[in-house]
Amino acid sequence: MVARLIAARERVRGHAHRTPVMTSLTLDERTGARTAFKCESLQRMGAFKFRGAYNTIAQIPEAVRARGVVAFSSGNHAQAVALVAQEFGIPAVIVMPSWAPQSKLDATRGYGAEIVFYDQVGEDRDGLAERLSRERGLTLVPPFNHPEIVAGAATAADELFEEVGDLDLLLVPLGGGGLLSGSALAARVRCPSCRVIGVEPEAGDDGARSFRSGRLERIETPETIADGARTQSLGPVTFELIRRYVADIVTVPDAELIRAMAFAIERMKLMVEPTGVLALAALMSGRVEANGQRVGVMISGGNADVAQIARWLAGLADDRQLR
Amino acid sequence: MVARLIAARERVRGHAHRTPVMTSLTLDERTGARTAFKCESLQRMGAFKFRGAYNTIAQIPEAVRARGVVAFSSGNHAQAVALVAQEFGIPAVIVMPSWAPQSKLDATRGYGAEIVFYDQVGEDRDGLAERLSRERGLTLVPPFNHPEIVAGAATAADELFEEVGDLDLLLVPLGGGGLLSGSALAARVRCPSCRVIGVEPEAGDDGARSFRSGRLERIETPETIADGARTQSLGPVTFELIRRYVADIVTVPDAELIRAMAFAIERMKLMVEPTGVLALAALMSGRVEANGQRVGVMISGGNADVAQIARWLAGLADDRQLR
Repeated sequence: MVARLIAARERVRGHAHRTPVMTSLTLDERTGARTAFKCESLQRMGAFKFRGAYNTIAQIPEAVRARGVVAFSSGNHAQAVALVAQEFGIPAVIVMPSWAPQSKLDATRGYGAEIVFYDQVGEDRDGLAERLSRERGLTLVPPFNHPEIVAGAATAADELFEEVGDLDLLLVPLGGGGLLSGSALAARVRCPSCRVIGVEPEAGDDGARSFRSGRLERIETPETIADGARTQSLGPVTFELIRRYVADIVTVPDAELIRAMAFAIERMKLMVEPTGVLALAALMSGRVEANGQRVGVMISGGNADVAQIARWLAGLADDRQLR
Repeated sequence: MVARLIAARERVRGHAHRTPVMTSLTLDERTGARTAFKCESLQRMGAFKFRGAYNTIAQIPEAVRARGVVAFSSGNHAQAVALVAQEFGIPAVIVMPSWAPQSKLDATRGYGAEIVFYDQVGEDRDGLAERLSRERGLTLVPPFNHPEIVAGAATAADELFEEVGDLDLLLVPLGGGGLLSGSALAARVRCPSCRVIGVEPEAGDDGARSFRSGRLERIETPETIADGARTQSLGPVTFELIRRYVADIVTVPDAELIRAMAFAIERMKLMVEPTGVLALAALMSGRVEANGQRVGVMISGGNADVAQIARWLAGLADDRQLR
């Protein structure tokens, strides 16, 4: 996997943005930590997912790649595959749930992809994606459970370590585990003493449960605003890396995610989606003790509907009035 | 002024953030331009104002500076002076209107400044600030009409040119003219062929009127959501530089500002305040023809109330539903 990471680093350079690393004195004062945020919300298409998609699609043999790619995704992976396909000038078909946020549907179509809703054709998404792959000769680009997706995702934390040096702690949002296992891999290479901790929504704690039980636990439909972490379970590839290299997995409730989003928007001027602030929320809510430590915080993405953002912020403003 | 810019560049280095320059393929496709955004919303305290305040306060003789500083400001300059004073460990008194956004009041107090509301003491703000200056020995830090404030503000565009090279066009938000005159100065030094255009809110078009008439025009209380551009007029210092180095001044209505804010939030993942998107709005609305050109867009700041943002975005989301 280390060789894959090194190759991915070269491959994505000049294609993925080298996203900015930001700090917040206000947060440092509150937590007693020295934090560095890796802002993958400012990545192309608004999330770290571009890295894995690019790293994977770039390695498909050209004649095969030319026929196109297919992916299933609740959102950000869809946009990533669509945008990478557009760059390579190849067709992309995205299998999506009909509850995906409108902004993600619009953006995916905007990148030229064809969208097929799996919950409206009476087939499960994996089955549908596989059928499309077979019938049209499209290569399936998995959302997280693939070594090249993980190696691509790993380049974000790799850049963070390169920029800020050693860290005591690295907090990473956890959905399917691509970013978490990749970040842990990068820490292993750049700073083996760094404790890497995954953060998932309380209602979708399959990762934490799997981590404790030692086998893949599954949650049917996690009810959380963190739509990027509504994955039902980790995959064998990501789980294996997480078991080996991750120190712990903690959870945060949705209310903390909204508070963290408001902090990101008001104080850091960053639009971050609920899944994107999982790590920040763990730090702000004290679910991870960080006093006196150098802490890396992965901000995984920033895609959300204007209407939804308006509702979250209005609710938060009301809460403040009541206090 | 060129020597002042060069000195300011050295002075603010390591104190002001070198803010990221960002791009948007989506916007480039819509406008036919190649745009580069200088994101001063990601500057310390959330706006370019830190640069001018730091550059000015750093030059006050130490014994005088120790007694403290005073400033009047509708918001961002207040936070800038408060934060710089905190860094130097000196007192700061900020004279503010009572209608200043709550988030700006909170942040200013958060940086340790004392706030005095001028519209509640029956005195005009200049008079009050001068009295405080006299009585307490505080040095007045003007919001824009001062060569060192302008030279500090100029360092933002200076960094942009350094990073992206030549530009055909540079669009800059216009309130009191500190950022615009500074940006024009930087263009003069780095890329004299670049046309620098100021953008102000339609309801507060004192700058455009002054530019055309050749003398300082004044608007009593501009009614616009762009609270950073509610200045009543340019100052003699900024006006002189603007007349000499700026190619044109255009205006945009508030509705375009909300649309531009939504684009910044949804597509670029940047929280930008209404004043901050003036230049972006001019580009998006076609008020400036940019097809085929390399265009720099200054994003001046990102400070706004969560409750207000929620209302603007909710209104916009409703509009979209209706269409």
